[in-house]
Amino acid sequence: MSAAGFRWTVRVYYEDTDAAGIVYYASYLKFMERARTEWLRSRGFEQLHLAREHGVVFAVARLAVRYGKPARLDERLEVGVGVTRLGRAGFDIAHDVTREDGTAVCTGSVRIACLQTQSLSPRAIPTFLLTELRRDH
Amino acid sequence: MSAAGFRWTVRVYYEDTDAAGIVYYASYLKFMERARTEWLRSRGFEQLHLAREHGVVFAVARLAVRYGKPARLDERLEVGVGVTRLGRAGFDIAHDVTREDGTAVCTGSVRIACLQTQSLSPRAIPTFLLTELRRDH
Amino acid sequence: MSAAGFRWTVRVYYEDTDAAGIVYYASYLKFMERARTEWLRSRGFEQLHLAREHGVVFAVARLAVRYGKPARLDERLEVGVGVTRLGRAGFDIAHDVTREDGTAVCTGSVRIACLQTQSLSPRAIPTFLLTELRRDH
Amino acid sequence: MSAAGFRWTVRVYYEDTDAAGIVYYASYLKFMERARTEWLRSRGFEQLHLAREHGVVFAVARLAVRYGKPARLDERLEVGVGVTRLGRAGFDIAHDVTREDGTAVCTGSVRIACLQTQSLSPRAIPTFLLTELRRDH
Repeated sequence: MSAAGFRWTVRVYYEDTDAAGIVYYASYLKFMERARTEWLRSRGFEQLHLAREHGVVFAVARLAVRYGKPARLDERLEVGVGVTRLGRAGFDIAHDVTREDGTAVCTGSVRIACLQTQSLSPRAIPTFLLTELRRDH
Repeated sequence: MSAAGFRWTVRVYYEDTDAAGIVYYASYLKFMERARTEWLRSRGFEQLHLAREHGVVFAVARLAVRYGKPARLDERLEVGVGVTRLGRAGFDIAHDVTREDGTAVCTGSVRIACLQTQSLSPRAIPTFLLTELRRDH
Repeated sequence: MSAAGFRWTVRVYYEDTDAAGIVYYASYLKFMERARTEWLRSRGFEQLHLAREHGVVFAVARLAVRYGKPARLDERLEVGVGVTRLGRAGFDIAHDVTREDGTAVCTGSVRIACLQTQSLSPRAIPTFLLTELRRDH
Repeated sequence: MSAAGFRWTVRVYYEDTDAAGIVYYASYLKFMERARTEWLRSRGFEQLHLAREHGVVFAVARLAVRYGKPARLDERLEVGVGVTRLGRAGFDIAHDVTREDGTAVCTGSVRIACLQTQSLSPRAIPTFLLTELRRDH
């Protein structure tokens, strides 16, 4: 299944937690972006290089997250990355965050838009990138 | 309209921005929580007090955010808080984040669950709180 | 005393705390930067404008912080900003973070370097800025 | 040399950067804490376990950081952890943050205090922990 195509491990540190003793709800968005970044890197693309050499920057256009049992300090989490839609100027990612024993912590769906670095206006995904992303779809 | 019932102003600092020169997408979740916290405080409720004295903690069960034109360093944003659903053990909040000129930056809908402080299991919203929240619904 | 020349109020939210139930140690650096930013703004300078129109960006070259009694969720803190040194290409700031009752939470001293926006290499503080900063010294 | 006794690799993501295009100055404190946490873990100690089973929590009492050439998005950094002082109720850590080519990004020295979990008052480092930490000193 595409949602489990790529998985990235993150560790929960103090910086990720809050006074309720659990991972702060916005921290999961950081974990998901780390996983997307590493997925792109594993396909050969670094975002700073894309921005500087190809004028391409990815931005989140919308997202939805469902939270389950919260994670805590010192836990090791896995973040899945799956391409669920691939368009001309963007793509959709499904994330699932799980514990090492496989239990679900949260899930997310994120719509990514491809933008021009300077103007931040929409642009088509470059062909060399689109070709590679198709393998994940 | 209830979505605009309470508005809280936040300023964009370096901490909120990223290397794309705009506000980082997870930072808006912080802004929204600050607004929810100040809305509750304006109704007479402080969360640390609720946790310690009443064993009540609020947690985000799910959320959806749509991002529009990104905000930048030094901007002053307003975050709206409106109650769109009020249940026995939780409530839904609609947020809108706008610039000073009223243009939209993003919108969010957040489902809040009422939990017991220690066990983090669901519990009913205390009556004194529910009575107050009803005025916003 | 110059260290108390400007004071800025910050509120502690969940985002600032960690699983130890107190404000995370790096969060105080955010509070201090917010106070420096508002101090500059109160003197007529916005950093995005300085970067774009004058090619000036401020960066922290070194800092030291001493932590006292930790702050907690919902507390209102005051962050003091005082100029303790004003040089040609940078300045030093003394911060103190206090509770509403005046008790100390932490203190910081921060050396700021004036850099060119693009190259990030050192440059002299523009005269119009230096003139204004001298009033705080 | 003890400062290089343990090294931990961190990757720079968007979350760590700011609108100046570089790593935000407080993010290095997160990197340093991740390295300290992993160093303790490598010695057999997890902080949540220490807090719950032994009533021990570590807090930063003071720190000093010197910043050099800033790091950017996508860079891989190494954070060194070395014990420079080991006392009855705390210890000092020297950190250095370097690029993959060995060039310095910043250095830090951090004084850690051993506290009781509930009261957050000072306490002696437990013997089993002290014995292990002595090997790094």
